[in-house]
Amino acid sequence: MKKLINDPEKVVHEMLEGMVLAHLNLLKRLQGTTVLVRNETPARAKVALVSGGGSGHEPSHAGFVGKGMLDGAVAGEVFTSPTPDQVFEAIKAVDRGQGVLLIIKNYSGDIMNFEMAAELAEAEGISVKQVVVNDDAAVEDSTYTTGRRGIAGTVFVHKIAGALAEQGASLEDVHRVASKVINNVRSMGMALSPCTVPAAGKPGFEIGENEMEIGMGIHGEPGIQRAEMASADEIAVTLVSHILDDLKLASGDRVAVMINGLGATPLMELYIINKKVAEILNEKEIRVHDTFVGEYMTSLEMAGCSVTLLKLDDELTELLEAPAHTVAWKKE
Amino acid sequence: MKKLINDPEKVVHEMLEGMVLAHLNLLKRLQGTTVLVRNETPARAKVALVSGGGSGHEPSHAGFVGKGMLDGAVAGEVFTSPTPDQVFEAIKAVDRGQGVLLIIKNYSGDIMNFEMAAELAEAEGISVKQVVVNDDAAVEDSTYTTGRRGIAGTVFVHKIAGALAEQGASLEDVHRVASKVINNVRSMGMALSPCTVPAAGKPGFEIGENEMEIGMGIHGEPGIQRAEMASADEIAVTLVSHILDDLKLASGDRVAVMINGLGATPLMELYIINKKVAEILNEKEIRVHDTFVGEYMTSLEMAGCSVTLLKLDDELTELLEAPAHTVAWKKE
Repeated sequence: MKKLINDPEKVVHEMLEGMVLAHLNLLKRLQGTTVLVRNETPARAKVALVSGGGSGHEPSHAGFVGKGMLDGAVAGEVFTSPTPDQVFEAIKAVDRGQGVLLIIKNYSGDIMNFEMAAELAEAEGISVKQVVVNDDAAVEDSTYTTGRRGIAGTVFVHKIAGALAEQGASLEDVHRVASKVINNVRSMGMALSPCTVPAAGKPGFEIGENEMEIGMGIHGEPGIQRAEMASADEIAVTLVSHILDDLKLASGDRVAVMINGLGATPLMELYIINKKVAEILNEKEIRVHDTFVGEYMTSLEMAGCSVTLLKLDDELTELLEAPAHTVAWKKE
Repeated sequence: MKKLINDPEKVVHEMLEGMVLAHLNLLKRLQGTTVLVRNETPARAKVALVSGGGSGHEPSHAGFVGKGMLDGAVAGEVFTSPTPDQVFEAIKAVDRGQGVLLIIKNYSGDIMNFEMAAELAEAEGISVKQVVVNDDAAVEDSTYTTGRRGIAGTVFVHKIAGALAEQGASLEDVHRVASKVINNVRSMGMALSPCTVPAAGKPGFEIGENEMEIGMGIHGEPGIQRAEMASADEIAVTLVSHILDDLKLASGDRVAVMINGLGATPLMELYIINKKVAEILNEKEIRVHDTFVGEYMTSLEMAGCSVTLLKLDDELTELLEAPAHTVAWKKE
């Protein structure tokens, strides 16, 4: 294992410190916790959004804390759910009396711990609602999940629910729009290489020199097929076909596209994938409103990518385009 | 070689297509060329900035084309200088009668080809000036370079010279400020793994399971030391020490910091490096004005990082903070 780290047990702490030091104008750490919150107080009381999960998916989630997106992000150990007390600290810190929406990726540990935190918060009189993101079109159940996994589509939930909250909407309304995004978003990924959790010290799985895993999860969970390596175009066709089947998009529909790198994939390759994705959508007369290419939901240094499509209506389009000022999503 | 590509000979073409399709509002391709230019015409005639070089360093350079930064970027084949005719096309396309500044990284091929293009443009009555970026503090001469190499510090030249050009400054003045940035910026990198040029099909060098290369160039050129793997803190100390020696920073100086990932390095690790870099600078009472952590000047899927320090004065600070609207640098 070759990594730019000091102590495998301290990677999350040191990452959070380095992140706050880099972005003092945007982020601050709640002392003694693994919670990062906005460093400015929103101009008026608003519904607050909290997300989080295991570390190793950076810039998710702290990279999306800021105006127009999240109010707080809770970091667990690498690929490990944060504990309920950490989530509870985040909820208490960001609540402005308008309630808190928890955005949870669909992993059993995350759901259990975020729900326990919600109960603790409700007991202190804080209104809490939650949504569970399950955008992975690859498999129905998986290693750490009942039902579909939550992956890169989560970032669209942050963006759109965050924009509505910033406009002063109620907790019910922010919950409604977050649920709408979840209904309208699907993703699918593939991996060329594994990644190594620092505390484990060795790769999470093995894969041959000419193999790839289609439908791989962001913690290395098995996908739907261990296949021979294919071309970028063939891979794009496979991923998009699964998503289109699931989302039932039709000619004339509008989408936002995300081509997400898992950690070790050059931007060059992500753009080559995007070329084919755009061509497929164009052939089907599905209109691409906007495209996001880069690292949004990574798996440490895994090589591979995921494709996400979000079906847009007028409300989602307007909120997607609303201003955001975070480390990893900036929009004027 | 496992890569998300179709044909090793077509990676640059397909990447440029995929990039334009993703960012139609920002970029367009000059037909039949490897040149990307802004898709909006600047509101008034201004000095135009052109950069470029071999591909494989994305988001450099097309990711920095847009308001407040570059007007055009010329892409060569992977790790290969673009030809003079391509650079000449870029110059002709972006010139608005106020002259063109070429921002060249210090590689012999780039300098030769950009200079030939400049001569072709001058012959057609276009005023052209150029700067050569040589920020790499690691080695004096190198495989493809006489003098220091140009690496991630180039992005600060794009940002600051681009901001001054956007304000309507003369070609002489934009050239002056670009030269000032070059005098004030130093970088140094290190690599944990090699990368594979698609057309070559195999890694550019070999490195042991417990080795790293200190001072590695962005094309895999040898650095100053093949050393045993060290901790993130030790690596940060080594890189920053070389830069500080070279830049002669003193207590009270102000800097901008860039922690640049070479392609396969998780953000987590870059933030851990940043933590130590910030601590070192704080100890020396060097004030960090702003910090940029992410992928700015990559080497395909090489693992490793570079650290860049830019010494700021009031003019450079103001221009660094000026608005920019590009794929990879957004500032309100």
